[in-house]
Amino acid sequence: MKKQGFQQPTFSPCGIKDVDFGRDVKVIEPCNLYGCEIGDRCFIGPFTEIQSGVKIGSDCRIQSHSFICSGVTIERGSFIAHGVCFTNDKFVTGKPSPNPEDWDETWIGEDVSIGSGTTILPVKVHSGCVIGAGSVVTKDLTFPGIYAGNPARLLRKL
Amino acid sequence: MKKQGFQQPTFSPCGIKDVDFGRDVKVIEPCNLYGCEIGDRCFIGPFTEIQSGVKIGSDCRIQSHSFICSGVTIERGSFIAHGVCFTNDKFVTGKPSPNPEDWDETWIGEDVSIGSGTTILPVKVHSGCVIGAGSVVTKDLTFPGIYAGNPARLLRKL
Amino acid sequence: MKKQGFQQPTFSPCGIKDVDFGRDVKVIEPCNLYGCEIGDRCFIGPFTEIQSGVKIGSDCRIQSHSFICSGVTIERGSFIAHGVCFTNDKFVTGKPSPNPEDWDETWIGEDVSIGSGTTILPVKVHSGCVIGAGSVVTKDLTFPGIYAGNPARLLRKL
Repeated sequence: MKKQGFQQPTFSPCGIKDVDFGRDVKVIEPCNLYGCEIGDRCFIGPFTEIQSGVKIGSDCRIQSHSFICSGVTIERGSFIAHGVCFTNDKFVTGKPSPNPEDWDETWIGEDVSIGSGTTILPVKVHSGCVIGAGSVVTKDLTFPGIYAGNPARLLRKL
Repeated sequence: MKKQGFQQPTFSPCGIKDVDFGRDVKVIEPCNLYGCEIGDRCFIGPFTEIQSGVKIGSDCRIQSHSFICSGVTIERGSFIAHGVCFTNDKFVTGKPSPNPEDWDETWIGEDVSIGSGTTILPVKVHSGCVIGAGSVVTKDLTFPGIYAGNPARLLRKL
Repeated sequence: MKKQGFQQPTFSPCGIKDVDFGRDVKVIEPCNLYGCEIGDRCFIGPFTEIQSGVKIGSDCRIQSHSFICSGVTIERGSFIAHGVCFTNDKFVTGKPSPNPEDWDETWIGEDVSIGSGTTILPVKVHSGCVIGAGSVVTKDLTFPGIYAGNPARLLRKL
């Protein structure tokens, strides 16, 4: 790594750009929201990032420090706790793809609860599922239940 | 999800509100601290959130990106590294409870060290415990030791 | 914990201080970067912290919410996804050491991809490695492969 001398990078502020908000949404700043849809009565906590193309239904809470990437849809009434990371790129070629066509999608049903510190690979999660804190969800969750662990496994049906 | 048209949400800045600080506390902003007690000589890093009712004893460090929820007490001299998430709601009814009476409490003893990227379920952690980075603590840690993993297990006594 | 009365702590803003930037770097603020080297054409996302002594080669991406501690070197072309935590202090004495001489170093080779929500203990990671989201890397990764889990294990060679 060669010393480059002190040069000035391009600094841009995070912020809210091209977001389609429903009614009575509450947002705590700073957060970085762009090109996404956020439904009625949602709450968006501080230090969150929500990328372009994300669709969030009504009455969802996205708590502080969570990151929601392109390709994610979250249906109404779901709760995304603190520090939850979604993903869309499984690095199948051995590295990140810059091409959105290579990214996978995630679908989170209605009234899903995702605990803090959880990581979600590109999956489908059935409505009503509960995912324990600190989990890593690597496969579709196809029926309502409580799931936890790395990888997340069924603890009990609901 | 029906397109809602571009409406303006309520934006609020994060910040410091109704915090009872001890002497010689250092805070790096932005952070979101409200309704909590923070003891003498604590350090609070950037991108942290500490919720109402939290009590933090003297000489603690709460490093960047950590989230400390209502119901948590941390005794003097403890070290909470980066990106640590506490929790209080075990979703026992199958979804988050809006009622604080349903939330569980967490107690962290004196001189506890919690590694980065760790998630803490509502538990008691004995004074002097060390918790490795990336752990998920699901049960009380009842004697001093080094614990790690998901779920966290004893590696060796101290 | 004795009630201290409402005292005013020292508030400092996070920011960019003493950073040696290469050419054409892009930074999204707020972030907390100090005393580090960041190579040509790097991207640094919002809500990141990069500590003193860190060296990041050219053409790297450090995504939102990631934390890179003192003692870490990342070679050119590597991708650090969202919410990745590095560590340098293994608490070997049973608590954090304030002395940098007690901290361990981490080396990340070229073209390494580290998935979101991953925690990295002080290790060496061979060039070309892929680390799945939500992993905890506790040992050196000595040849190119896809690794995942807590602790991270080889899924397949590359």
